[in-house]
Amino acid sequence: MEFAEFIKTPMVDRVNLRKPFCKPVEGTLCITGHHLILSSRQTNREELWLLHSSVDSVEKRLSGSGGVVMIRCKDFTRLALDIPTAEECLNVAQSIEQLSHIDDITLAYPFFYRPTFDILEDGWHAFHQESEKNRYKSLLKEDWRISTANKEYRLCQSYPQSVFVPKAVTDEMLVKVAQFRQNGRFPVLSYYHRESKAVLMRCSQPLTGASGKRCKDDEKLVNAVLGIGVRGYIIDTRSQTLAKLEMKTGGGYEPEAHYSQWKRINQSIERRPVFHESLIKLIEACSDTSATQDKWLSKLESSGWLSHVKDILTCACLVAQCVDKDAACVLVHGSEGMDTTLQVTSLAQVIMDPDCRTFTGFEALIEREWLQAGHPFTDRCAKSAHAITKQRQESPVFLLFLDCVWQIWQQFPCSFEFTEDFLILLFEHAYSSQFGTFLCNSDLERRCLKLESRTVSLWSYLNRPEVLGRYINPMYDPNPMVIWPSVAPQSLLLWNGLFLRSHINQCKQEEAWTEVAKIRQYDKELRSKVTKLRRHLVCLEKEATAAGVILPATLDGDVNGCVKN
Amino acid sequence: MEFAEFIKTPMVDRVNLRKPFCKPVEGTLCITGHHLILSSRQTNREELWLLHSSVDSVEKRLSGSGGVVMIRCKDFTRLALDIPTAEECLNVAQSIEQLSHIDDITLAYPFFYRPTFDILEDGWHAFHQESEKNRYKSLLKEDWRISTANKEYRLCQSYPQSVFVPKAVTDEMLVKVAQFRQNGRFPVLSYYHRESKAVLMRCSQPLTGASGKRCKDDEKLVNAVLGIGVRGYIIDTRSQTLAKLEMKTGGGYEPEAHYSQWKRINQSIERRPVFHESLIKLIEACSDTSATQDKWLSKLESSGWLSHVKDILTCACLVAQCVDKDAACVLVHGSEGMDTTLQVTSLAQVIMDPDCRTFTGFEALIEREWLQAGHPFTDRCAKSAHAITKQRQESPVFLLFLDCVWQIWQQFPCSFEFTEDFLILLFEHAYSSQFGTFLCNSDLERRCLKLESRTVSLWSYLNRPEVLGRYINPMYDPNPMVIWPSVAPQSLLLWNGLFLRSHINQCKQEEAWTEVAKIRQYDKELRSKVTKLRRHLVCLEKEATAAGVILPATLDGDVNGCVKN
Repeated sequence: MEFAEFIKTPMVDRVNLRKPFCKPVEGTLCITGHHLILSSRQTNREELWLLHSSVDSVEKRLSGSGGVVMIRCKDFTRLALDIPTAEECLNVAQSIEQLSHIDDITLAYPFFYRPTFDILEDGWHAFHQESEKNRYKSLLKEDWRISTANKEYRLCQSYPQSVFVPKAVTDEMLVKVAQFRQNGRFPVLSYYHRESKAVLMRCSQPLTGASGKRCKDDEKLVNAVLGIGVRGYIIDTRSQTLAKLEMKTGGGYEPEAHYSQWKRINQSIERRPVFHESLIKLIEACSDTSATQDKWLSKLESSGWLSHVKDILTCACLVAQCVDKDAACVLVHGSEGMDTTLQVTSLAQVIMDPDCRTFTGFEALIEREWLQAGHPFTDRCAKSAHAITKQRQESPVFLLFLDCVWQIWQQFPCSFEFTEDFLILLFEHAYSSQFGTFLCNSDLERRCLKLESRTVSLWSYLNRPEVLGRYINPMYDPNPMVIWPSVAPQSLLLWNGLFLRSHINQCKQEEAWTEVAKIRQYDKELRSKVTKLRRHLVCLEKEATAAGVILPATLDGDVNGCVKN
Repeated sequence: MEFAEFIKTPMVDRVNLRKPFCKPVEGTLCITGHHLILSSRQTNREELWLLHSSVDSVEKRLSGSGGVVMIRCKDFTRLALDIPTAEECLNVAQSIEQLSHIDDITLAYPFFYRPTFDILEDGWHAFHQESEKNRYKSLLKEDWRISTANKEYRLCQSYPQSVFVPKAVTDEMLVKVAQFRQNGRFPVLSYYHRESKAVLMRCSQPLTGASGKRCKDDEKLVNAVLGIGVRGYIIDTRSQTLAKLEMKTGGGYEPEAHYSQWKRINQSIERRPVFHESLIKLIEACSDTSATQDKWLSKLESSGWLSHVKDILTCACLVAQCVDKDAACVLVHGSEGMDTTLQVTSLAQVIMDPDCRTFTGFEALIEREWLQAGHPFTDRCAKSAHAITKQRQESPVFLLFLDCVWQIWQQFPCSFEFTEDFLILLFEHAYSSQFGTFLCNSDLERRCLKLESRTVSLWSYLNRPEVLGRYINPMYDPNPMVIWPSVAPQSLLLWNGLFLRSHINQCKQEEAWTEVAKIRQYDKELRSKVTKLRRHLVCLEKEATAAGVILPATLDGDVNGCVKN
C-alpha cells in the first residue's frame, strides 16, 4: 500500500484516550492505512476504531515531555489522545492529518473493505430502474417514457443514463434542451403524485443569458406535461435578484412571455457556501456549553442554521401544496439543480408520500433524488464543520435535508418507520464510510470506478433484520396521509441528538427510547407465548375429551380477542 | 348570589366559538356567576365550560352589526366568540371582565363547587404533619424537634403553626430570631438528606440594616445544626450588590464576622417583577408564529425566560451539590424567602430525592415547600401574561419552578412517575381551579376561611386511580439516584407543550405518548391473559393426569420465565 510513507510511527504505547462522557482509557495506539486504533491492554478490546476519512481536523499541543492530539470528526464527535513523548505526538498528528487528506478516491477504504456479514440482497441492485418502472407503471402507460438519450452520459454528466421524460419529447429535442440548461440538466420527472395525477419535475437554470436566449424545445418539453389551459408552477429556489444576476453570467430564468402556462415563484433559499459558513458557526456555538443562556441563543440565531431549515421546509411545503392540493404540475430549479433543488423535491416527497417514511422508501428516495440525481457527495462531504478544502465545494446540503426530515419526524413522531438514529447513521455514512454508496459525485463516476463490483453498498449492510431492528421506531403507526409540518419558527428545533452529541450527554434520552423498545419487544414475546399456550391448550382439550374427562369451565371469550394481528 | 349585577346578558344565541386547531362551533352562550358556557345545539353538549377566574384578559372588537370577544386565559390558551349584535358583544365582554376581577375570595368558585366524584382520601389530610414526622423520624430522635412557637401565627404569619427547628433552640429564642428575620421567617428545616445526614434550611433575610445589627439567638440557631469545626453554606439567591443595597432598607445578609462557620455564596437569581415582565415577553414572542426564525430566536432571548430557568436550576444544583456531595448543611434565602428561596429548596429536593419524582412525593413537596411554606399563590397567580393587577404582586414564580422540573424531566424522561401533562395540570390549577388547594396566600388565611371544610382539595380529585392513570409516564423506571441535570444553555429548551399550546398544534406529539401508553396497557392485558391461560392449563393437566390421559410434550421451560415480576 502507498500509505506507508505517511505512517511515521505505526504504534505508540501508553496512549490515553479521552472521549466526552466516557472514562479515559489507556492503551496502545496503532495507525494503519485507513484506521486509527486504540486497544486497551486491560480488556484486550478495541476502544477506538476510527476511519481516517472521518477526521475533520487534527490539532496538537505539546505539554511537558509529551503532548495531546485533538481530533474533531466530521460527525461532530471529538476525542483527545494523550501521547507520552513529543516526537510521537507530532508524528501521530502529522500521520492522521495526511491520511485524512488523501485525494485519490481509489485509495479510499471502501475499495479495501471486505464485509464480515452475509449479503442477503445486494444493495447495488436494490433500487434499480425495474422497481422505478413499476412505481410509475400507470404514468408510463400514458404520457411518459424512459429515455436513454443520456447513454454514455452524452447529454448530462451528472444524470443517470436513463431518465423519465414526457412522451411528446423526442431524444433529438432532449439534445437541444440539454444544451439550454446548465450542465445539461434538462427537466426530468422527480415524482408522480398518484392522488392528484400531478407531476413534480426538476432541472437546472435555463441558459437565457443577458440576451434572453430561448429554446423552443425546452418550452415544448415543459408544456408537454400540462393539459390545454392548465397552469403549472415553476418554483425557483433563488431570490428574484439572484436569478436576474445570474443572467449576466449566462444563466437565467424562464420568462413569462415564452412560458405563459407557468407561474414562476421565487422561494428564496440561501446558496451552498452560506450553508457551510452556517454549519461552522452552529458547531462553534454548540461547543460553548459554558456560555450564558442569552449568548447561546444569540449565537444560535446568528448561525442562521434554523433559518435555512425553515426556508427549505417552507419551499418544500409550497411544492407539496401545489402538487397535492392544487393538483398542479411543478418544476423546481435553482442554479445548478443539484443542491437546494434536490432538498426541495425530496422533502416534498417525504411530506406527500407515506412510502418515503419507511426504511426502504426512504433509502429509495435517497437513491433516486440524491445519488442518481447527481448530488456531488464527494465534493460536498469532503469536510464538515472544522476544515475547508482547497476547492471549497463542501457544503452540508444533504445534512440540511436530513435535518428537515428530522423536523418533520419530531413533529410526527408516529409517522416514520425509523428513529432519528437512522437519519444520523445516513449522515455519518455520507461523510465517511466503509461502504461505496456515497462515494463519487455522480453515476458516471461510480461506473468509471466500477463501485458496484469493487465496493459494498450501504444498503446491503443496512437492509438486514438484525441491523434495521436497531433503528425501528417503536411508536410507528403507518400514516397514509400527507403530513403538513409546521414551519412556524417556534416549531423548528435544534437537532440536539446530532449537534450536541459531544457536548451534552444524551444517554438519558436514549434510555427512554430503549425503554419503549423494550416494552414492544416484551410485548412480542408475550404474544408468541399466548399463541403457544393456546395451542397447547387445544391439544390437551382434545386429548382430554377423547379420554372422556370433564373439563373445567372454559375461559372467557376474549382470550382469542386479545392477541390482535 | 351577588353576581347578578355583573351579568347583563345571561344568554346569547347564535354565538360562534373559535379555538385554535378546532373547527368553529355555533351555539348558545350562557354566562353564570362562575362560568362561561357554550352549548352547541347540534350535539347538545358543552363545547366550552370556562371558569371566569381563568380569564387573563378580554378584548372586544365590533365589526358590522356584531362583534368579537377575544379571551386570553391564564393558562395561555385563547378563544374568540363571534357575537351577532354589538350590544350583546359589549355586554358579554364587560360581564366577563367584571366577573374575572372579583376580589372577594369568598366568592371564588371553590366555595361553591360540589364534587361529582367520591372522595376516597381527603386531600386536605393527605400530607399532614404526622407523615412529616414519620419522614423525619431519625432526625427527630437526634437534634431536631417540632416547635409550636408559631401557634396562632404569632411569630410568622406566612409559616404553619408548627415547624422543625434544632433541639438546641428554645421557643423563647425563636421569638427573638423571628424579630430579626424579615416577616418573621426564621430558619426552619426544609429537607433532611438521609444519605449525607446534611440538612437544608430556609428563611428570609436577616434585618441587619445599615447599622449592622446582630441577633445572637439567630447565630446560635444556625450554628446549632453544624458540628464543631464543620462548615455550612449560606446560599443567597440575590447578587452581592442587591444584598448590600437591601441593608439601606433594613434588610441585609449574615456578616462573616458573626457567622464564621458559614460560607456565604451569592447565586444571583432575578427578582419577582422581572419574572413577570419576562413571561409577558415570552408569551408575546410565542404568539407571533409568522416571524422569521431570527426574529423568534432574538425575541426568545430577549424575554430572558430561559436565563431565569438556568439561574434557578444552577442555584438548585449548587445546593444539591453542597448537601449531597459535600455532606454540608445549607441555608437558603433571598429577601422575603417565599419566592426564589422556595424555587431553589424544592428543586434541590427533586434533584436529590427520588420520592419527589413520584406522584405523591411531588404533591407532598408542593404541599410542604410551597403551600405550607407560605408562597402567596393568590397574589402571585392573580393574573399571568396578559394583565397586570393593581397590586403588582403577580409573578410566575411557581410556573418557573414547574418549568425547571420540566427541564429535569425532559433530561431524565424515565425518572419521573408522571408525564409533563401533570405539571401542566398543576400550573393550571395554581392559576384557576374549582379546588381550594391553591387559594389564599398562607396557612393562616386558609384556616381563617376554613378551606378544609368549605372547599375540596385538588389532591382529593387527583389521587384517584382513574385520574392519576391519565398522567402516568409509561416510560417510568424508578431511579434511586441523585439526578444531575445539565444546565448548559444548549440543554435548556422552551417548554413547547405549555407555552406553544395555543400556537402550534401539539396533537402529533401527544399521539406518540398515547401510542406508548397503549403498548404498555396492551402489555398488561397480555400478562394477565398468560397468567389465566397458565392456570387453566395446570387445571387441565391435573384432570387429564387423573384420568390417565397421555399428555403431549410439555412446553419449553421459559413459559414460566416469560412473565416476570
